[in-house]
Formats: sequence, C-alpha cells, structure tokens
Amino acid sequence: MTVRIGVIGTGMIGQEHIRRLTHVITGTRVTAVFDIDTARAEEVAASVGARALPSGGEVVDAADVDAVVITSWGPTHAEHVLAAVAAGKPVFCEKPLATTAEDCLKIIEAETAHGTRLVQVGFMRRYDAGYREMKRVIESGAIGAPLIVHCAHRNASVPDSYTSEMACQDTAVHEIDVLRWLLDDEIRSVQVLRPRRTRNAREHLQDPQIMLFETAEGVRIDLEVFVNCRYGYDIQCETVGEEGLVRLPDPAAVSVRGAGRNSTAVLQDWQGRFENAFDTEFREWAASVAAGTEPTGPSSWDGYAATVITDALVTSLHSGETVRIDALATRPAFYGGAGR
Amino acid sequence: MTVRIGVIGTGMIGQEHIRRLTHVITGTRVTAVFDIDTARAEEVAASVGARALPSGGEVVDAADVDAVVITSWGPTHAEHVLAAVAAGKPVFCEKPLATTAEDCLKIIEAETAHGTRLVQVGFMRRYDAGYREMKRVIESGAIGAPLIVHCAHRNASVPDSYTSEMACQDTAVHEIDVLRWLLDDEIRSVQVLRPRRTRNAREHLQDPQIMLFETAEGVRIDLEVFVNCRYGYDIQCETVGEEGLVRLPDPAAVSVRGAGRNSTAVLQDWQGRFENAFDTEFREWAASVAAGTEPTGPSSWDGYAATVITDALVTSLHSGETVRIDALATRPAFYGGAGR
Amino acid sequence: MTVRIGVIGTGMIGQEHIRRLTHVITGTRVTAVFDIDTARAEEVAASVGARALPSGGEVVDAADVDAVVITSWGPTHAEHVLAAVAAGKPVFCEKPLATTAEDCLKIIEAETAHGTRLVQVGFMRRYDAGYREMKRVIESGAIGAPLIVHCAHRNASVPDSYTSEMACQDTAVHEIDVLRWLLDDEIRSVQVLRPRRTRNAREHLQDPQIMLFETAEGVRIDLEVFVNCRYGYDIQCETVGEEGLVRLPDPAAVSVRGAGRNSTAVLQDWQGRFENAFDTEFREWAASVAAGTEPTGPSSWDGYAATVITDALVTSLHSGETVRIDALATRPAFYGGAGR
Amino acid sequence: MTVRIGVIGTGMIGQEHIRRLTHVITGTRVTAVFDIDTARAEEVAASVGARALPSGGEVVDAADVDAVVITSWGPTHAEHVLAAVAAGKPVFCEKPLATTAEDCLKIIEAETAHGTRLVQVGFMRRYDAGYREMKRVIESGAIGAPLIVHCAHRNASVPDSYTSEMACQDTAVHEIDVLRWLLDDEIRSVQVLRPRRTRNAREHLQDPQIMLFETAEGVRIDLEVFVNCRYGYDIQCETVGEEGLVRLPDPAAVSVRGAGRNSTAVLQDWQGRFENAFDTEFREWAASVAAGTEPTGPSSWDGYAATVITDALVTSLHSGETVRIDALATRPAFYGGAGR
Repeated sequence: MTVRIGVIGTGMIGQEHIRRLTHVITGTRVTAVFDIDTARAEEVAASVGARALPSGGEVVDAADVDAVVITSWGPTHAEHVLAAVAAGKPVFCEKPLATTAEDCLKIIEAETAHGTRLVQVGFMRRYDAGYREMKRVIESGAIGAPLIVHCAHRNASVPDSYTSEMACQDTAVHEIDVLRWLLDDEIRSVQVLRPRRTRNAREHLQDPQIMLFETAEGVRIDLEVFVNCRYGYDIQCETVGEEGLVRLPDPAAVSVRGAGRNSTAVLQDWQGRFENAFDTEFREWAASVAAGTEPTGPSSWDGYAATVITDALVTSLHSGETVRIDALATRPAFYGGAGR
Repeated sequence: MTVRIGVIGTGMIGQEHIRRLTHVITGTRVTAVFDIDTARAEEVAASVGARALPSGGEVVDAADVDAVVITSWGPTHAEHVLAAVAAGKPVFCEKPLATTAEDCLKIIEAETAHGTRLVQVGFMRRYDAGYREMKRVIESGAIGAPLIVHCAHRNASVPDSYTSEMACQDTAVHEIDVLRWLLDDEIRSVQVLRPRRTRNAREHLQDPQIMLFETAEGVRIDLEVFVNCRYGYDIQCETVGEEGLVRLPDPAAVSVRGAGRNSTAVLQDWQGRFENAFDTEFREWAASVAAGTEPTGPSSWDGYAATVITDALVTSLHSGETVRIDALATRPAFYGGAGR
Repeated sequence: MTVRIGVIGTGMIGQEHIRRLTHVITGTRVTAVFDIDTARAEEVAASVGARALPSGGEVVDAADVDAVVITSWGPTHAEHVLAAVAAGKPVFCEKPLATTAEDCLKIIEAETAHGTRLVQVGFMRRYDAGYREMKRVIESGAIGAPLIVHCAHRNASVPDSYTSEMACQDTAVHEIDVLRWLLDDEIRSVQVLRPRRTRNAREHLQDPQIMLFETAEGVRIDLEVFVNCRYGYDIQCETVGEEGLVRLPDPAAVSVRGAGRNSTAVLQDWQGRFENAFDTEFREWAASVAAGTEPTGPSSWDGYAATVITDALVTSLHSGETVRIDALATRPAFYGGAGR
Repeated sequence: MTVRIGVIGTGMIGQEHIRRLTHVITGTRVTAVFDIDTARAEEVAASVGARALPSGGEVVDAADVDAVVITSWGPTHAEHVLAAVAAGKPVFCEKPLATTAEDCLKIIEAETAHGTRLVQVGFMRRYDAGYREMKRVIESGAIGAPLIVHCAHRNASVPDSYTSEMACQDTAVHEIDVLRWLLDDEIRSVQVLRPRRTRNAREHLQDPQIMLFETAEGVRIDLEVFVNCRYGYDIQCETVGEEGLVRLPDPAAVSVRGAGRNSTAVLQDWQGRFENAFDTEFREWAASVAAGTEPTGPSSWDGYAATVITDALVTSLHSGETVRIDALATRPAFYGGAGR
C-alpha cells in the first residue's frame, strides 16, 4: 500500500520533503500540494504528478490524501495541524508546531479530544544514528545517571536576516528537543549568557550565545550556539554521567596527511550532517501511517515544550536572568506520563 | 517510470537485494524471480507481489522484466549474464561475474558484439562514501602520485566451510576491485605470504594472509586478510602518495569514557559497514536502467580482471611465488581505453 | 654553577620536589630543609645530603641557600614567602601564595618595595606542552579573538576529607591560573552552578560543580569540576575564537582493538598527566635563579588573583549568585601592565 | 656519586649527548672527550669543563672516566668498543655497534670473555613511552600471540648524500631493533620491494622502499621506509595478534578547527619525536653504571643482529630476492638464551 501525502507549503524545505517522499522513501507518494504562491505550487505539483489545490484545507480534506505534511510559514502551522486533526488524518508538521504556546495547547486539546495521537513534529535529531547510539548507551546504564550535558551548535555563517532570537527559536530548538528525549527529562529553567561577540556577525546579532538549562532531575546543560563560526557546521554533544561519559562522534571523513598537518574536512552545512536522519524520520513516520498506528516521533507535547522553552530563552536573552519554566511540570497522561 | 526487475537466485543475498529493490530504493519493483529451490522462490515472490518462474531464462525473457539481477550460485552466473546480454537487457550480476576467466571473456565478447555496455558487476565498495572521498582526494592531486597502498580486511570470524582460497576469491576480491578503481591502474603481479596462523582458525585455514600487489604504474599494495580477527569487522585503507597520504575513516560511533578507558565500538559485520554503499550502488544502477544509459559501475572487464587476479592469488597461495599477470595488459577500447 | 635550594615543608609534595631538584633537574641541589615534623625533616635531609634546620627562617637565611622552595601547610606560606623576600632571595611557593587576599597583598607590597620580582607561584599548567601549544595557536591569530572556553577538570575520586570549597580552592584554581595566562585576560565575575550530585560522592560534597567565568574582554568560560568521575583523571580545554577553535589533546596512548572495541587507556592520576610540566617548571625556574634574572612563571599578582577568584567562587558556591570581582581591575605596573 | 663519562666523537650527535649528560641527566658529568677534529674537541670540552685528550684510547683509559660514550664515525666504533671492554669499562656505543658483522662478533667474543655485559648499543626506540606501552600490552596477552606487524618510517626529506642502502642501514635499523625487542623474536628472512619512486627524491635514490621480514615464530612484518614523504616525520607501528591489535599513538598535539578542516600538526623531525626516549635511555644507562650492574638496554648481540639484518636488506635491495638469515638462529647463553 502506498501512503498518499498532501503537502502544505512548497518552499525550499517543502520541495526537499517532496523530493524525499517521491524519490528516497519507498511506499509514499505526494498527491496534492498547496502553496500561497500558486505558480510555485503548480510547478512543484507537476514535477511529481500531484495536483495543486487552492487551499490547505482542501489538501487536508482531499480523498486521495492519507496524511499531511506541513512545511508552510510557521505562523500558519497551527491552523493546518488543527484542520488535519479535525479530519482525523495523520499530520507531520515541520518545527515549530505553532508559534505560540497557546496555539500549541489548542492542538494538544484537539488531539486529546480525538483520542489517539495524530501529530508528529519535525525534530529530526532523534533519528540521527549518533544520538540514537548515545541514547542506547545512556539507557544501558553504562555511564550511570546523567549529571551534565555539554553541547555546541555551530554554523559556518547565517544570512543577515538572522536575529539573536532565532538563535533560540530556530537553532537551539533542535538541542532542546533532542536533549529532552535523550535524557527522558524535562527542562525547568533556562538562562542565556552573552559572550564577547564575534566581529564576523552583523551588528544586531548576539553571536555566540551560551544557553544554560536545568532539568527536573537537576541535570545541567550548557549549549554554545555560534552561527558564524566560519569553519563549518559542527554539532557536539557530551553527556557526563556518574560512571563515565558518552560523546557524539564527528562525521566519518577521510584523514589526509599533507603540508605538515593531519586533517579531516569539516562539513559545511546541516543537510549533509542530517541527511540520513531526515530519511529515517520520514521512513519511520510513513511506516506508522501505513500501519495505522500512532506516530513514535516528537509529539504535540514535545512541540509545545519546545515553544515554551524557546520563549523562555528569548525572555532570558533580553533580561539576562534565569527564567523558570512551570508550564511543563505535569505532562498529560495522553502524552506518556503523569511524570516530569 | 518504475524499473521492473527480475531476480535470479533468492538465497540470502538475493532476498536482501529484493528487500532493497522493494523497500529501500524508489522507482524499482521486483516482478519475477527464479530459484532452483522452487518453494523458496514462491515464498519470496509472494512476499513482494512478484511471480516465480520456472527458469532463469524465463526471468530474463519475461515481458515485464526490464532488467535482471543475478544472485544465484557463482557457477551459474555466466549462463544467466549471457542470456541477459543476448536479450539486450541490463543485468546486475553479483560477484563473481563468472567463476572462470574463460567465461568472463565470453561475456565480454557477447557484450562487445552487442555494442553497448549492459553488464554491471556487484562490487559495492566503489559506492562507499569513504572510498569515494579518498578517490576525490587522490584525483585532486593533493597527495601527488600514489606510490603505496596499505590495506587490511578483517572479519571477526568465518564459518568452518571457509577455505584459504576463499580469502582470495571472496574476501580480497573487494580490495582488488576498489583499488583498481581508486588508482585507475592495473594489477600486474601478485604474491601471497603466509604469516603465523592464528589458533582461532580451523586447521585447514591459512589465516591471516598477506597479499602483495604491484600495479602497472609500479604502485605496491599490501593487503592483510584476517578473517578470524575476533574483535570485529574492520576495513582499513591508506594511500601513500608523493606529497601526503589519505586514510579511510573508521565508521562514526559514539565514544565512551568509562572504566579507565576511552573507547568506541567496532562494527561486527559487513552489512552495517556497507549498508549505505549497497543502497547507493542499486540506486545508481537503477537510475542508469531507467535512463536507458550504460551502467557506470564495475564492468565485465572489471569482473574479468577480478577473476584473473584472484586466480593468480590462489596460484601464489599454493606456490608461495610471485605470479605475473599478463592478461590485463591491454584493456579493450570498448571498456574505456587502450591503456593499462 | 649549582643552585643551592632550601625547602620548607617536607611532606608528600615537598619530598616530590626534593626528588625532582636532586635527581631530575640538573644544576640544583637541596642543601637545607625544615619541617614542623622534625623527624621527617631529618630523614628527608639525610636522604639527599642536606641539613635539617630548626625553623623556616633559618632555611631562608642559611648562607648555603640561594633560593627557597615552600611546600609547607598553606596557612604558613605567607610568612615564609615574606621572609624570603626580606632576605632578597628567589622563592618558589607552591599554591596558594597565601590563604587570604590580605596576605597576598602584603607579599605584593614587600616584593614591589624590593624592586625586582623574587616570587614564583607553583601553577604548573603553564608548563604543559599542550597548553603551551594552545597559547601559541591563540597568539598566532589562527583562531581569531577568543570568545568562549570550555573546560573540564575530572578526577577519578577524592578522599573523604575533600570538601565542596576545595573544588574551588584546590581544583579549579589550576584552570583559573592557566586561563588567565592563556587568554592574557582577567576574570571579572564568577558563578557556581550545582548540578545533580553523583551518588559516588560523600553526602557533604557538591560533586560535580559547574563554574562560570566572565573576563574583562567578555570571554565566557565554563568549567566542569567533577572529582569523582570514576573513569580517570581527565583535563579538557577548548578555546573557541572568531575564526576557529583549538582543543587540548588527550595524552598519547596506544590504542587497542579487542573485544569489539577500539580503546585507549585514560590516565588515572595527575602525576602522570603533568609530570613533564612539573619538570619544565622547575627547570625554567632554576635557570632564572642561576642566571640571576626575574622568574618568568606565575607572579605574586597571579597568586593574589587566584586567591581573590577562588574566594569569589566559594562565595558563589554558597549563595548561588554571580559574584563580581573588582579587586583585579587594575594590575600594578610592577606586574606587567596598568591593563586588564 | 657522579658518573664520570668520556665521550669519543664530538660531532653533532656527540654534542647532543654531551649536552644531555651535562644539562638534562642528573648524576653524570663529562670529564674527557676526543675527536679527530682537535679544535672542535677542545671547544666542546671547554664548554662543559672537560679535557680534550689526544686519542680515544686515552679517553677510555683516563682515571677520571668511569664509562665511555662512543659517537664517532661508524667505522671507528669497533676499535673504541673493544678498547673499553679491554679496560673493563661500561660503554655506550651509538649505532651501529660496528660496520661489519665480523667486528660485531669480535666485540661479542671480547665481552663474553670479560664475563659480564659492558656494552650497550644506542637504539633509543625501546625507551619511547608508546613502544613500551605496546610491549606491555603484548606481554599482557591482551591481543594474543602476535601474527603481523605493520610499520612505517617516514621522514619529510633527506640530504642528497642519503643513499638507497642508508634506508636499510640508518633508517630501517631502528625498526629492526625495536621489533626484535617488542616481539621477543628473531628475524629469519628479509626482502626489499621497490615501489614506484617519488619524483621528490634524487635520481639515485629508491624512495620509498617496502621491507618485508619474517621472524622465527612466523610473524610477518611489513615496513614502509619513505624518507621524502614531505609532510613530516611520522612513525607508525601496529601489531596484529590473535585476539586484537595494538597501535602506536601519534604524538599528542592540539587540534585546530579552522578553514573548513579539523587538524593537528605533524612533527617535522625525529628529535622532537624521540627526545624523551633519548633522555630515558641515558638516564637508565647511567643508573646501571652508577649501580655497577649490567646494562639493560640493547646488547652487543642486538648490535650484531642489527648489522646482520641490515646487511641482508642491502643484499635484497640489490637482488630483489628474499634473503634468509641463519647467523642469528642460536643466541649465546651469555646474551639471554639458547633460544630463537
């Protein structure tokens, strides 16, 4: 059985997912798309034998759409997710789930009322082989209880339109999701520190930033976000536990000895770094849709948590103070536990 | 357009490729299979909605078969490849192309008479990201002209049925193909050395072995083949050139500090090591079939070379002497050059 | 010319330095010692052909003592250093220079009045080959201006007598000195965070701790101090700059592939880690004494700074708040600059 | 007690050892020197407060010389070593022990007649921390019985006077000694292969070379000698055993991420690589002299073996054939065993 997918939003990331669903993942087919830019929607649709429809709602409701992928502009996510939930169709929503915590809660309410999970949020790090191996090591007990996590998220450069707040909302959000999952723990407070700024960033941008997190279990996380590090795209993560530590590997690359140095190339962009993670993410999501089971990836609750936590980061970025997070103290039973 | 594939041989490797063509690669579908074990063929066919046919010939000739994959017992390869060439259909043949040099030459003759390349031989190392990056580095001139290559091919263990000759024919053959491609050079002589035997091998087995190669350009290659190394599956390759060297990376894996050591896991089997290479191999082959172009992977000539060279290795294994190889001195123009 | 040295304090570290001055470093000889434990002083003196004297003062004043090494109990350091300065003799004082900032200032005053530098404080990290190479890289401009430093200081375990304050005073103090030197920058504020405690520490001990520093230039430093990490002694340091980063190496050690893992041993104690640094420290100090020049190692000002900063860390450890440091805003010209 | 040392030969390596015995090693003093270049001898002697004597024999016989270090021109070694043995004085002879196997045998005969070991040959690799750790790992049984050793010995460049034979005599000789010691095994045959020559070597020089060894136990060793590798000084050694393998580390060096690469510097000369090994070599030798015990380093027998084996390599370099070595089949009891 082929899963027929409707895609809302045919911009860069939408086209990338359409390519993936068409040419990389087996068992999926894009049948309908919508974009506010009608011409682009038509063109993309034509390239994969799909129809361009006049609205996101029509994509959701189309008879030949089994599941929906949302890759439109962030502020429109909530509306489309709610429509999919209302239609009882599985929906994969690129991050963020919604741009406000209130909208996330509306989705949670609707999904809970529906009675089974329909929503998966597009945090792909959970599908990266390195993070998965790290999680297996942690869960094996080999390093004991986690106590501290050191992270770095570095990009070679960002466009001028990138703001200090985006370091929280668009960049750190990936660590936020993957760390909550990795530790099976919830974040309770955050703080943003402002190091000396690099001269390689635009005047308006605080770059780098250091973000501090404390979890419900008392784990302390430090995250360096540095989006103009110049030398490449570099993701580091080290979890320190009571009996040892586990560190994410650098991507495999040939080493070269020459000109007095032994060296390996550093990746220059995130696509190469997380290409396989994206593939696995969609493969596993499509499999859950095909099987008619609940998705196993990041839930609406995770999407809500990400928004609440990045909001707190932005508050701290401006105030410099530690910001407590109380909204996540109790996770609904529907989302896997009274806990945390 | 979906490429419809007939598979001859539904044993372990056949089933693996059928899974890949059905569930991993997009744009391909298995429509017909044959196996000498009829029950197994029926079962495998049923699992993917294909038909089991009564002979390899009927698979080749089936109207709904655009291209053929041969994964049957080695001695039957030549017959099926020749049938596919006679039918003018693209054929992917697992190694070896044929078990004798004579049969390889018959295929070359048939294919040359056909006038365009139809045959690809299943050497997957050329599709491994590490080897490809190594080839890019070599071709960039960064290390100058290659002078020496150091290789190791280690398996944790082998079954009792594994013989000393298989170290040449089934194990070293992968390095033979990838090194010829990596260096764009031809092997001119071989020698097998017999180190002290591990007590972890069966009495009949010379393990490890050291194989020495000299190429037309004078490059010297040493290859350690050690198929009971116990600790895992480990592929090493280092090319030393006039200005520097390039080394294949170990697969990325999380590092763990604990119990007084800093360590990473070693892979235990080749499937994990070359999973992505297999996928890329079939993806690129299927793309060439879909496009109606000649395959870009290992050719009949490469399959012939592999057989000639492994034959020479076996001779040297028994004699201890260096064996010169003259059969490969002139490569037919049809296979890319009067050269080498 | 042999430099004749008097050693005050013949406990473990004193004996270690006496061994080094006698058997490792050429051109030095221990001629007189004092210890409050007279029997121990006699025994140690006899082993190297020195005399045991009845007081530290007599060691300082002895005619056959060219320079003094102080390795007695911390609270007695100031008295002995002041005596050496009064006698106009070069003095090497193990950390701390003094246990209070007031006493450090008295030493600074006395030394300044003397007119040339006589005092060197025993921070040996500046003599470690790795840190020195890191400093060279930073000063070369290769990574641009430093923005962030990530550090970890891990011990396998500590005795029961080790307190939370000692993590600041005895452990972090090494990073404090080496980072001030590495960055050629001054620390302006500190904060101690309390992560989840390891179950492997005694009840009274906050272990691990995270210490945050901000420098005059705005560089942010995070330092994990974890003194019951179990797996070994492990020092990490990574300086992130505008154009790249530089990371301290792990000590060289053979790698072993076996039992499914590729691993290297982690050192178990600091002696092995900094053995060469100690040797170089004393070799360079003795050379300055022999040459009659000012010492080039950590000065009284550096000793004062270390005490001021560790005091601030202890305050923050108890309060949880960021503690500003104003006392170091202006460095006396005598100690190399109106700056910082 | 200070060991008083006479040094015969005050060229570059002689001066280096005199510096070491004077300024690095404690408990040793150079009291007398000889060199055929009288002016140089006088100058060197003056710099360390020693006397320049008119002949090597007078250095050996001088009353204030407890032990002799020979760093003169190779062909003169035998004469001086024999003189020292005749005088019953410990003697440290830089490699080679003698330039002919016959002269080595004369020394063995004289030393055996003397009745205790007096001679140590200057192979410093046995004192390198990495090789020593490798030996510990092998002897621990962790990798089982050794089966294969892969080595590389690379220099950035050599002077024009360097010949193909020197690759055997001066370069490979270090591996020969350290491998015999590492494996506690004897070499039984050798062969030199001639790879494609680098264009960066002079016309007369076969560079690189591959040297193959087989030991009495059947261990196979391959050694790449490449003395114009351009990128630096690089020593590699990997011992493959029945249960795993152990690999020599690269020297510790800071890693730098910048300009799209993660890199470490490669050492450019052997002095930096083996500085600590030289120090340890002399420290241990001087300790044995001071204690009046037999030296524990490479013996006359090891010096003889090195000469026999390098002679065989040179023979093979010219003939291309495998050369059997029978002279080492029985080691005299005096040199530690009827064995091998």
